[in-house]
Amino acid sequence: MKPSWDPPATRPSPTTIRDVAAAAGVSLSTVSKGLNGTGQLREETRQRVLQAAKRLNFRPNDLAQSLLRGRSFTVGLISADRYGRFSIPILEGIENALESTRMSVFLCNAADDANREREHIEQLLAKRVDGIIVTGRRSDPRPPLEVSAHSVPVLYAFSQVSDSKALCLLPDDVGGGRLAGEHLIAAGRRRIAHITGPEDFEAVKHRCAGLKQAVEQNSLPWRVDDVMSGPWSEMWGRYAVDDLLDRNQKIDAIFCGSDQIARGAVDALRDRGVRVPDDVAVVGFDNWQIIAAETRPALTTIDMNLHELGRQAGLRLLGMINGEDQQSGVIRLPCSLVTRESCGASRPVQPFARDNTLEGLA
Amino acid sequence: MKPSWDPPATRPSPTTIRDVAAAAGVSLSTVSKGLNGTGQLREETRQRVLQAAKRLNFRPNDLAQSLLRGRSFTVGLISADRYGRFSIPILEGIENALESTRMSVFLCNAADDANREREHIEQLLAKRVDGIIVTGRRSDPRPPLEVSAHSVPVLYAFSQVSDSKALCLLPDDVGGGRLAGEHLIAAGRRRIAHITGPEDFEAVKHRCAGLKQAVEQNSLPWRVDDVMSGPWSEMWGRYAVDDLLDRNQKIDAIFCGSDQIARGAVDALRDRGVRVPDDVAVVGFDNWQIIAAETRPALTTIDMNLHELGRQAGLRLLGMINGEDQQSGVIRLPCSLVTRESCGASRPVQPFARDNTLEGLA
Repeated sequence: MKPSWDPPATRPSPTTIRDVAAAAGVSLSTVSKGLNGTGQLREETRQRVLQAAKRLNFRPNDLAQSLLRGRSFTVGLISADRYGRFSIPILEGIENALESTRMSVFLCNAADDANREREHIEQLLAKRVDGIIVTGRRSDPRPPLEVSAHSVPVLYAFSQVSDSKALCLLPDDVGGGRLAGEHLIAAGRRRIAHITGPEDFEAVKHRCAGLKQAVEQNSLPWRVDDVMSGPWSEMWGRYAVDDLLDRNQKIDAIFCGSDQIARGAVDALRDRGVRVPDDVAVVGFDNWQIIAAETRPALTTIDMNLHELGRQAGLRLLGMINGEDQQSGVIRLPCSLVTRESCGASRPVQPFARDNTLEGLA
Repeated sequence: MKPSWDPPATRPSPTTIRDVAAAAGVSLSTVSKGLNGTGQLREETRQRVLQAAKRLNFRPNDLAQSLLRGRSFTVGLISADRYGRFSIPILEGIENALESTRMSVFLCNAADDANREREHIEQLLAKRVDGIIVTGRRSDPRPPLEVSAHSVPVLYAFSQVSDSKALCLLPDDVGGGRLAGEHLIAAGRRRIAHITGPEDFEAVKHRCAGLKQAVEQNSLPWRVDDVMSGPWSEMWGRYAVDDLLDRNQKIDAIFCGSDQIARGAVDALRDRGVRVPDDVAVVGFDNWQIIAAETRPALTTIDMNLHELGRQAGLRLLGMINGEDQQSGVIRLPCSLVTRESCGASRPVQPFARDNTLEGLA
């Protein structure tokens, strides 16, 4: 079979700066000045260099440039997120921040495995990346990256270390919890249950604390019995609702620690004939489209704005790389409320298939 | 605030091969031989070099080595998958294939935007990547990568181009559809409806063709009315089930084109009092844990084995880079069946919270 590319032995060399110099009839240093816009050069000469470079499809070799400048124009993003649910929006945000530079962001996936993470770091350092951003599946403190503090700027996004010199960007989970509580109270709800994830997650403690602030600032009673902590799953949401209602708790709202839990809660409420939002309003957390939009009714939920978190991480890393920015500590970025139907908003449900055919296939 | 790393002006240079040579009291070429295991060298000298390198924490500079060898030991993975649902398992598979080499895989996300894709390719080529793997959100033909066919090996994984010289690895969707049909027929089902995604997806046509093969090979009638095509959503699954049952179709099984559609179908069946799997067995497609495992009952489904597809892509790209392997065309890799409860398997449902606390938080 004919190969789709030439094997190494016969692969032609890419165009070099020498080819451009020959084609433009100038010296190597004139080509360099022309392409980099440096030094003294007549406009006519500069144009000749640029046209020759374009004609020959000359691609400046970043590798060689990197070596000269001691930079690779590459940022490594280390992820531990097997599903990409958190890391892909963060990656997109970082790329957005670096768009105007010539820098690339490369994601490598450590999948929560310390050995793989170490290998990835070795490889990134050997490639002389300009900076590393570490992200995670949860915001709790993790061991700092095993990178000498002096070799390369590192920051943590949606991930946290207990090193006070490190810079960590995290969602403001307390603010997110408060936002959910305030929205429910503004909608007239007076007794808000909280069904959430495992207690050992910092995010679980923070979201609960935020809800408590909203409840107490509105002079409503805070009831410990209405807070239930369990696994991050729909099944837990269903179980917890059954337990709450079996205990005959007179709740009129539930704030759930994740959209998955909220979906289970909404399903269990419907199974018992409790109307959402009329009898019980529900707010989730994550704004995970695939879950939130498909729940019946669709979930009002808190968005952690991970794209913006990634963008901020990119901008701050760029500052560190350029030696402009000397930040450390934990920075919390605001969450926002996304309104759908589960809380009493009046947005109509989208018809399912306006622009799709319903005909058979075979 | 004290910075967590030194700004560029004062950042100390990393250890170089010169430092190692000085510390070991040998020449540069001896260090090179000692570290690379090449040339003639006494064992005692080699040990002295290795120990000096270790003591000084010497990290061979991949950038410099890359430039000398014309290779970067880097593979670029271009993804168009905003959720990472397909690209992360493929990334893990590629990393697995390249584990024993010194090569890194870097994912960059083009998010279905042709301009961003072009920028990513420019950057990857400028960094002299050794190869590029292109992945996608769907397996239909897309435009070939705008890379000169002679510059770098490229292959497509879970993505396809209509260039006969290109190598494309895809899941065997026909085989997957047949597997679902055969499983249902082996379980005694005689009339299998098919609720699937939009007709313009090649995967939709292939999965349907596979089901049809299984049905006809078992001498059962193939009914065009029992095939329904619509959007990839739960809502469509619910609507289609309502439509099927309103039309009074006497089905005893449904094969769905995705787990999301299957989940909607199962919910609609339950809402109507139809028992799954007793009255109607359901098989999904994707084995997307977050959907399949949380459906009531949990979904029996087809797995595209994307990790293995990524591993195969990595191995084949490695062959192309080494000039060993000269493949082109479309290669289809087998899907497999994952059995849960929706098809009549007798695996017990896991209790929800064995190792989680249920206490309140506040």
